[in-house]
Amino acid sequence: MSVSAVAADRSVCAPLPVLGRDVLVPLVTGGEVDYAALDYAASAPALQRVWDDVAAYAPYYGSVHRGAGYLSQLSTDLFENSRRTIAEFLGCRDEDQVVFTRSTTDSLNLLAAVLPQNTRVFVFETEHHASLLPWEQRPDTAVTYLNAPRTPQQAVDTLEKALAGREPYGPALVCVTGASNVTGELWPVRELAAAAHAHGARIVLDAAQLAPHHPVDIAELDVDWVAFSGHKLYAPFGAGVLAGRADWLQAAEPYLAGGGASRKVSRRTDGGVDVEWHTTAARHEAGSPNVIGAYAIASACQALTEAGFDGLVAREQELIARVREGLAEVPEVKVLSLFGDDAPRVGVLSFVVEGWNSSHFAAALSAEYGIGVRDGLFCAHPLVRTLLGSEPQEPGECGAPEAAPGERSLNAIRVSFGAGTPDEHVERFVRAVKELVADGARWNYRTEDGRCVPDTSA
Amino acid sequence: MSVSAVAADRSVCAPLPVLGRDVLVPLVTGGEVDYAALDYAASAPALQRVWDDVAAYAPYYGSVHRGAGYLSQLSTDLFENSRRTIAEFLGCRDEDQVVFTRSTTDSLNLLAAVLPQNTRVFVFETEHHASLLPWEQRPDTAVTYLNAPRTPQQAVDTLEKALAGREPYGPALVCVTGASNVTGELWPVRELAAAAHAHGARIVLDAAQLAPHHPVDIAELDVDWVAFSGHKLYAPFGAGVLAGRADWLQAAEPYLAGGGASRKVSRRTDGGVDVEWHTTAARHEAGSPNVIGAYAIASACQALTEAGFDGLVAREQELIARVREGLAEVPEVKVLSLFGDDAPRVGVLSFVVEGWNSSHFAAALSAEYGIGVRDGLFCAHPLVRTLLGSEPQEPGECGAPEAAPGERSLNAIRVSFGAGTPDEHVERFVRAVKELVADGARWNYRTEDGRCVPDTSA
Repeated sequence: MSVSAVAADRSVCAPLPVLGRDVLVPLVTGGEVDYAALDYAASAPALQRVWDDVAAYAPYYGSVHRGAGYLSQLSTDLFENSRRTIAEFLGCRDEDQVVFTRSTTDSLNLLAAVLPQNTRVFVFETEHHASLLPWEQRPDTAVTYLNAPRTPQQAVDTLEKALAGREPYGPALVCVTGASNVTGELWPVRELAAAAHAHGARIVLDAAQLAPHHPVDIAELDVDWVAFSGHKLYAPFGAGVLAGRADWLQAAEPYLAGGGASRKVSRRTDGGVDVEWHTTAARHEAGSPNVIGAYAIASACQALTEAGFDGLVAREQELIARVREGLAEVPEVKVLSLFGDDAPRVGVLSFVVEGWNSSHFAAALSAEYGIGVRDGLFCAHPLVRTLLGSEPQEPGECGAPEAAPGERSLNAIRVSFGAGTPDEHVERFVRAVKELVADGARWNYRTEDGRCVPDTSA
Repeated sequence: MSVSAVAADRSVCAPLPVLGRDVLVPLVTGGEVDYAALDYAASAPALQRVWDDVAAYAPYYGSVHRGAGYLSQLSTDLFENSRRTIAEFLGCRDEDQVVFTRSTTDSLNLLAAVLPQNTRVFVFETEHHASLLPWEQRPDTAVTYLNAPRTPQQAVDTLEKALAGREPYGPALVCVTGASNVTGELWPVRELAAAAHAHGARIVLDAAQLAPHHPVDIAELDVDWVAFSGHKLYAPFGAGVLAGRADWLQAAEPYLAGGGASRKVSRRTDGGVDVEWHTTAARHEAGSPNVIGAYAIASACQALTEAGFDGLVAREQELIARVREGLAEVPEVKVLSLFGDDAPRVGVLSFVVEGWNSSHFAAALSAEYGIGVRDGLFCAHPLVRTLLGSEPQEPGECGAPEAAPGERSLNAIRVSFGAGTPDEHVERFVRAVKELVADGARWNYRTEDGRCVPDTSA
């Protein structure tokens, strides 16, 4: 579909205004170009709307909860209304709680901390480290790591078999990503949730990569919890969310001990201290909350909803198609995939280039084209190992651009985009890949402080 | 000292520009007035300089650490430079680490999580819940709660005796506040640190209330760690700091498990997962960092330093003197103090008013004068209980303004201010207290959703 055809399709949104859209960056080959932020999967720019909302609120910032002043009460209302907006955005059930955390990582660590005694956690090895690693922190929690499936159905079958065979048949939690941070591929969340519930387990959805690209409805997917980060949802102000079932959250010890979580504290006659904790979301939010961070997330949720999330999804799918078609014309490029070419995906795509060191390639995209991508293992080492069929290594150092043909890549390049990405950025990216593969880099690069950077010493 | 004399004293700074200085709030008695934010101890407004720095950076926001793009590298440098700026502001030793957290509460929970096995923690019952409560979360940590001292020397003596008498004589940590969040009184940090070290213990300084009001030098005070929050230091963007000795931090399991903290992750042949963790501050900072929050703190540190922190302290002391002199003229007002009238303090002061319910008084200050203070127990229940000599209760409901004479207050009112407070705000506060005590409230109040609010139903 051509650019004009996309623009003419009224069901497809225009890109949403984001901060940084006009930032110029220098090219090593001379001149400047507007920065093409194609690392949304790591962190996305703020929506202009989010920034405007934060800027309009900032002079009214005040302490929340017990402040008697006008701005304190305004800020308290704003904070609690943000919680309600997010609950609505996620389609939360009446009994669900929305807990503010600092990130998806923090949300999943919180859930790990509140698991009932002797819970067994089931997690695919293909998860981001944030959803792979939090579960072993408590000695009574056992973890079953499931091998990478090669189809969505195989994921469901693998999970069912593991859940059915667990011994003892006690409390269990499944943790699964909605969209892979490496391949962008969608996981069969609804089917995995059904499998979990059929076998007496609960399920948490890591929506860090899904929520910015696709509506998430907690009740419709029938998952027990959803975790996501503001900074990937166009609201980079240090807050994240864990939303879902209140019972485990209420029954557990507070995640952080301190003010705000404590309702009443008193000395005992034996010299110790008795604490009565809140049972609301405040139980796990000790300390002064990040009001701006919470409000920024709520603002982003409203902006996506008001823009028409379905139209944004439609546009992103057009961009994905364009990138995939462009890369398919370069035989040296191998796109990484677990579920195959036809798997539905979000705007996240990793690849290797035959004969190229990935850090070197990413450095050239930046220095010669003003394109920001990411090279490395994307905090998903076991998955990247499976996808590359080799022992991966954290990158940084430049390689010989002309590696021996057939030599396996040790890491990969990831391009990712979203609601703020203009057509020109993905067009420039496809053109840059083609030119680099055909003609090589136009500049020399060297390793400096673990980064591959242009050699400007000459 | 008169206002003009203060202004003429060149060693005394003018108030620093803060956001919200011109915000008008409605008075229940008619008209509007600029909001007097006198709840700095709960959360302070952003310095204009901090906001300007954040606004200038926001378009350049990018993913940090592994991003290959220009803005990613710029953001990574900004983030790591912020760490260095804060280390310098705190006078850190070469071997210290600066870990970004979400708040003081989070910083102290982090320290609680990394204590060596079987550490005994010594903490005065007078601490804020954030420094009182985090220590019992691990079953191998024992906590000794020390009774409220009535002089700084008694604090040192009490600590020395407790440390010397501990059995077994194992690893120990002392946690102490630099300035009380209730009375504003300074604690003898240097002397307590010396006592701790003399008895083989370490010490962490809760500088949440000290750092915004007074230079903190970790090496000069000879404390092992310092914890503080950005939002009290004029940088309300969801970040906090734990700075200090690296060894316990490096030896412990990561505070959060996830990406960023993990250097290498691989499956074992038995199906499990092996993780190699970083030993830098990143070990405890899993997840995408709050770059804006970290940078905002660094900006605030620079702003305070460049304005001349000593001059800011001198000005705040003038404001404190003015408030104290004003309140001393009202016999019905009792200022709460642990260490007595002559104790040095920061701009934080709590009091009760004979015959008044504190929530009612605070509501009238807000509705009739546009003054934002806080009523309650200030997340320091045992301390407030000691200071009031009664069993305190969380406030909210209006009381009879004319309570029975001699009836004890169940909670208190706190006024607090800092680098952004203009003279007029404390002058208005003193005048308002005098008028309310002399003439009573000019409006009727009622309880609504646990808040005491003006009754506007008539």
